[in-house]
Amino acid sequence: MNEFRHIRHQPPSQLTKPRELVLAVPKMQSNVNLARIVRVAGCCGLTHMLVEGNPKIDATIARDSLQQITIENHRTLLPALRRWRESGRPLVGLEQAEGSISLHEFRFPRQAVLVVGHERLGLDGDLLSQMDHVVEIPIYGRPFSYNVATATAMALYEYCRQYPEG
Amino acid sequence: MNEFRHIRHQPPSQLTKPRELVLAVPKMQSNVNLARIVRVAGCCGLTHMLVEGNPKIDATIARDSLQQITIENHRTLLPALRRWRESGRPLVGLEQAEGSISLHEFRFPRQAVLVVGHERLGLDGDLLSQMDHVVEIPIYGRPFSYNVATATAMALYEYCRQYPEG
Repeated sequence: MNEFRHIRHQPPSQLTKPRELVLAVPKMQSNVNLARIVRVAGCCGLTHMLVEGNPKIDATIARDSLQQITIENHRTLLPALRRWRESGRPLVGLEQAEGSISLHEFRFPRQAVLVVGHERLGLDGDLLSQMDHVVEIPIYGRPFSYNVATATAMALYEYCRQYPEG
Repeated sequence: MNEFRHIRHQPPSQLTKPRELVLAVPKMQSNVNLARIVRVAGCCGLTHMLVEGNPKIDATIARDSLQQITIENHRTLLPALRRWRESGRPLVGLEQAEGSISLHEFRFPRQAVLVVGHERLGLDGDLLSQMDHVVEIPIYGRPFSYNVATATAMALYEYCRQYPEG
């Protein structure tokens, strides 16, 4: 018998610097995926997202992440991404692509915009060509395709692992 | 413009050894969460899961992970977990608990059983006390609680990062 005991209301890990990762999400097929992405972004301490269009974000899924995260809605992502990039945030796409780097090996810039793709279509070609880096998560088995919210969670986890204090 | 190009049917990363991580899932509140867990386990190359009870696994979510993963159903998990442990697989619980280690710092045994908890109740106290290790994922913001399938995905990602070839 080991001495593990539940902590139901764990205090959050403290950031000593702000979380300077911005997350950009294109129009999605499923608002459930979008809301799940917002929730995990909140848990990872993010405070800023770019969302294409003006989709409804289901608060029963996203919970109170919406009180922490400012969501910028844009008719199309490209001009907004260009502005963020010009202000010094490299664009990091999450996609299976030629020229990509494995997420296991990628060193995130601390200030960056992580851009995820549509469930079925992935990152639009016009966006993909604007990325400074493309990272890809190794897949070892069936169905050979991560759900987009799952992949986003893995990428955010990796970012937090590299910047545990912000 | 960079030279990234979509690869829609990326070949999987090759394992040079079998994936010897087993995943154990208690009775869940949501079969959607269970099916999402099965899908990500499949993508990570797992071939064996223990599932409490005999829940329906939604194949529209889990996809063909079910052709790769052998699912052992058990009325209760504890006796099965004890057998796996006696055969040399330490039990690693994923839970917020006193005595836990951060997933950022935990070195997984290559052969292990990862045990996740119920959405609301977490890992049952009887199971928790049997764990050899408890790992916990740092949380930095609201809602201060990862969805169980999201947390499982992060833990599986970390395992694969440590054992990229099996």
